Amino acid sequence: MKLDVATPVLVDRVARTRAQMEAEGVDVLLLSTGPDLPYLTAYAAMPLERLTMFVLPRDGEATLVVPRLEAPRVVERPEVFSIVPWGETEDPFDLVAHLAKGAWVAAIGDHTWARFLVDLLASMPSTTFRRGASVMSPLRSRKDDAEIDALRAAGAAADRVAAQLQSGAIPLVGRTEAQVSIDISQRLIDEGHQKVNFAIVAAGENAASPHHHASERVIRAGEVVLCDFGGTMNGYCSDITRCVSLGDPPAEVADAYAVLHEAQHAAVRAAVVGTSCEEVDATARRIIAAAGWGEQFLHRTGHGIGMEEHEDPYIVEGNDVVLAPGHAFSIEPGIYVAGRWGMRLEDILVAAEAGPEAMNRADHDLVVVDA
Amino acid sequence: MKLDVATPVLVDRVARTRAQMEAEGVDVLLLSTGPDLPYLTAYAAMPLERLTMFVLPRDGEATLVVPRLEAPRVVERPEVFSIVPWGETEDPFDLVAHLAKGAWVAAIGDHTWARFLVDLLASMPSTTFRRGASVMSPLRSRKDDAEIDALRAAGAAADRVAAQLQSGAIPLVGRTEAQVSIDISQRLIDEGHQKVNFAIVAAGENAASPHHHASERVIRAGEVVLCDFGGTMNGYCSDITRCVSLGDPPAEVADAYAVLHEAQHAAVRAAVVGTSCEEVDATARRIIAAAGWGEQFLHRTGHGIGMEEHEDPYIVEGNDVVLAPGHAFSIEPGIYVAGRWGMRLEDILVAAEAGPEAMNRADHDLVVVDA
Repeated sequence: MKLDVATPVLVDRVARTRAQMEAEGVDVLLLSTGPDLPYLTAYAAMPLERLTMFVLPRDGEATLVVPRLEAPRVVERPEVFSIVPWGETEDPFDLVAHLAKGAWVAAIGDHTWARFLVDLLASMPSTTFRRGASVMSPLRSRKDDAEIDALRAAGAAADRVAAQLQSGAIPLVGRTEAQVSIDISQRLIDEGHQKVNFAIVAAGENAASPHHHASERVIRAGEVVLCDFGGTMNGYCSDITRCVSLGDPPAEVADAYAVLHEAQHAAVRAAVVGTSCEEVDATARRIIAAAGWGEQFLHRTGHGIGMEEHEDPYIVEGNDVVLAPGHAFSIEPGIYVAGRWGMRLEDILVAAEAGPEAMNRADHDLVVVDA
Repeated sequence: MKLDVATPVLVDRVARTRAQMEAEGVDVLLLSTGPDLPYLTAYAAMPLERLTMFVLPRDGEATLVVPRLEAPRVVERPEVFSIVPWGETEDPFDLVAHLAKGAWVAAIGDHTWARFLVDLLASMPSTTFRRGASVMSPLRSRKDDAEIDALRAAGAAADRVAAQLQSGAIPLVGRTEAQVSIDISQRLIDEGHQKVNFAIVAAGENAASPHHHASERVIRAGEVVLCDFGGTMNGYCSDITRCVSLGDPPAEVADAYAVLHEAQHAAVRAAVVGTSCEEVDATARRIIAAAGWGEQFLHRTGHGIGMEEHEDPYIVEGNDVVLAPGHAFSIEPGIYVAGRWGMRLEDILVAAEAGPEAMNRADHDLVVVDA
């Protein structure tokens, strides 16, 4: 895949990457499949058994080692990197080891397949390997203006699908969760996403499992249906969760939703520049715990988002990273009662000096629908 | 994702895995995201930053280390493994190191993310890591009867879409490659796939890049259009390539296609039990080279297929693996003339004592369509 990123943007990102390598004591950065590679090269490698690897020495020229077969798909950026194609019968690991020669410390892209690292460990026996995130995460987690624009557009597209759900335009009763999931997926594409990453549809007791996907279970009148969906649009991700009720919810469910809504709103207000991620998490958790649902809030409050659905910074206990302008993340507390019901409310936010900007604005209530 | 695999099948696979570990001198097998995990546990981990890891000591009980959040999605199989959930603030790598204690040699799943291996290298400093494929590939590459049934069903579904393409039921002229790609994707789902893995549509000169995906380029009358698509159906993959011509092809193209057709057919006939993978590759290559297109056949002749689109055995020069019953693979020679045109013809085959069984039977000609 080719991304539409201007060469000067790539040159700037590579320069900041080198500075981060300097700060972290990393001699060479090695990137394969995963989003770090297109972030620096505007080229996304397919997840294939043939090695594609971007070799960026802290000092010296950057090289993209690429299977000869894939080379025609690479847009050359001579200001950023040169291309070295390898043939079907060559050993690409020797090639990488040669380009990285003298490196004591290598940072390897987080999503690189272990099979490639196993082969590199053999080809580069005196090199210590670290997680690529130590170099890339500080850069990628703070979005620049073009990236925030892309997140806004993806969020608005997801909001349009959420509005269709809340207006009753998406039939629910009598369909299976899986059918509704395919319907939502199609609507994400229709609204401008190139790719659907997930479309969770969980009805009734199925919503009590936070990562339930979508089953053959038929949705029935009277149930609460949790829909959590997102996709990729121009390289950046959307992610939103809304619950709808097929009829007036029972008092227990309505009361719990009011708590959830308050917790989500409070965490969003807390997510200002200068606050730590764990404090944002604690804000949501305190409110849900005070209402007696603390044990039923099974997961962290949120995750970073950008080229990946889940990336740094994580809004979780123990993460003392302080929010800074450009940090993009979800706020998505949930309450889950095993065997009975579950609920979650999720928006994407971007931290800014003027306060958090919401990428999602769809109705935050537990909307009652007739669908 | 839960796969519908009977417990006795899993027990048998684990026993054969242990035998392979014994033969390879592997003390512990560590599997995370990727198809090896569901092959042995019927549970597929989502590709998340939270570690899921199946720990299988050669001697001793197997354990599935899983984020607490995901635990409700796991179907317990006490005869196969026990479950150890970990909480949001625990360190799962210490847990894995403890379960694997005493292991000198670990085999780690090929698709495990490098970030997890980096952390394991720190938690298990005296362990040597090898590729999981050394253990899993000999097992997974030879399909059992249930797996072959699944490949047949997926292949038949892909054939139905290919037949729609060849009958002119899929509009081509005036649409972009990307629009046709979405159309084919929808048809793969309609025909029974749960997931589309790729739908390459390459018109005219775009087909000269073997892994061109699909662009905004509009398809024009008179062109040859290459379509290579596949998805996953009940856990197993389809993969087929057919080219159609929007009008009578030029003589050069028709002549080249006749060579391609002959090469593909000859390689299929050569793919009998007892023949090496490289000999099958050479069979296709000799015919294409003899016709003067050797330099334009840019890639290997094929790849194994099963739970993954690309897996062992690879039909490539240098692979002396001898075909055995149950080996499933593609035969897909191609001819690519940069800047002008490209063509490829691909079927999936399964090796059997009675000769290779074709999973694809769609028309092998360069069908002229009016679409």
